[in-house]
Amino acid sequence: MNPRLTHFYAGLEGTWCIREIRKIKGPSLPDAERLLITDSNGNLDGKWLLRGVRSNSRYTSAEEKAQLELRQEGLGRSTSTFAVLIPIKKTEEWWLLSQDQRREIFEEQSKHTSVGLNYLPAIARRLYHCRDLSTDEPFDFLTWFEFSPDHERDFDELLVHLRTSREWDFVEREVDIRLQR
Amino acid sequence: MNPRLTHFYAGLEGTWCIREIRKIKGPSLPDAERLLITDSNGNLDGKWLLRGVRSNSRYTSAEEKAQLELRQEGLGRSTSTFAVLIPIKKTEEWWLLSQDQRREIFEEQSKHTSVGLNYLPAIARRLYHCRDLSTDEPFDFLTWFEFSPDHERDFDELLVHLRTSREWDFVEREVDIRLQR
Repeated sequence: MNPRLTHFYAGLEGTWCIREIRKIKGPSLPDAERLLITDSNGNLDGKWLLRGVRSNSRYTSAEEKAQLELRQEGLGRSTSTFAVLIPIKKTEEWWLLSQDQRREIFEEQSKHTSVGLNYLPAIARRLYHCRDLSTDEPFDFLTWFEFSPDHERDFDELLVHLRTSREWDFVEREVDIRLQR
Repeated sequence: MNPRLTHFYAGLEGTWCIREIRKIKGPSLPDAERLLITDSNGNLDGKWLLRGVRSNSRYTSAEEKAQLELRQEGLGRSTSTFAVLIPIKKTEEWWLLSQDQRREIFEEQSKHTSVGLNYLPAIARRLYHCRDLSTDEPFDFLTWFEFSPDHERDFDELLVHLRTSREWDFVEREVDIRLQR
């Protein structure tokens, strides 16, 4: 087991109650009652299972990283009773781009990090990578967001920014899973 | 199974005969007779097994990519009867650097791509990533090189360039496995 690997089981167990699964682009995921997040690789039954590893950052510059670290707060705040899990798959075209081309689209054109910074510390965020796992995964990334219920409108505004960006032209599948503790 | 995943089994089978296993930094790998390279996840016995996925490039710019594609030749050339497998693990410090800091060390300070370009097309190369596999792997990358026996001296010269570079200050484990078809 990779110690940075996290499993997301949708089924009958877990701290997080699934409020709604929204199909954004491509096939959605089956409905389920609860989401269990665990490091262990137990034999859990579930409607679906997603997995991802926490890894090094791929686009963030040193200056952006310093700003993020200054403003962001961790997961698990007592007020963060709402969460959203967004699995995303990008097109083959995206993955064939060079690093500088992807960075240009990600930040210079789409302002992914700088727009996200405006929503800190309210919206806490953690990224998990799936594309390079040993198994063939349905998504390339899973992003986990946590916030208090009165920030859901801000969160939706952030999503509008991202989903209308140039970067999102390279998204071929996206599901939006709303949760509550 | 991830279709981009490749397995390297060291044991009694395989096209490649292991000439020598050289300990460069950190623990080496046990001696074995042959190396089997396969996409399939069979139940093969082996002295050791390494795995990696082919993935998107992490540091190469569009201009460098164009130069590489212009000059490089594929694996499997009939004259390429020598190969070298180099598994590498980098330090935690490396992985905590931001993307621009890693790129600066990789190319601007260490000339990783531009030095490698000088050895094309003689030295063919393929990179496999291990760090983000589901299992905890002993190495972060595996690099596979192929060339004709009369280019082994050039290959060793390339290694001197890389191993004395700033980037190699972040290498904590490296093994050099020499093979022959």
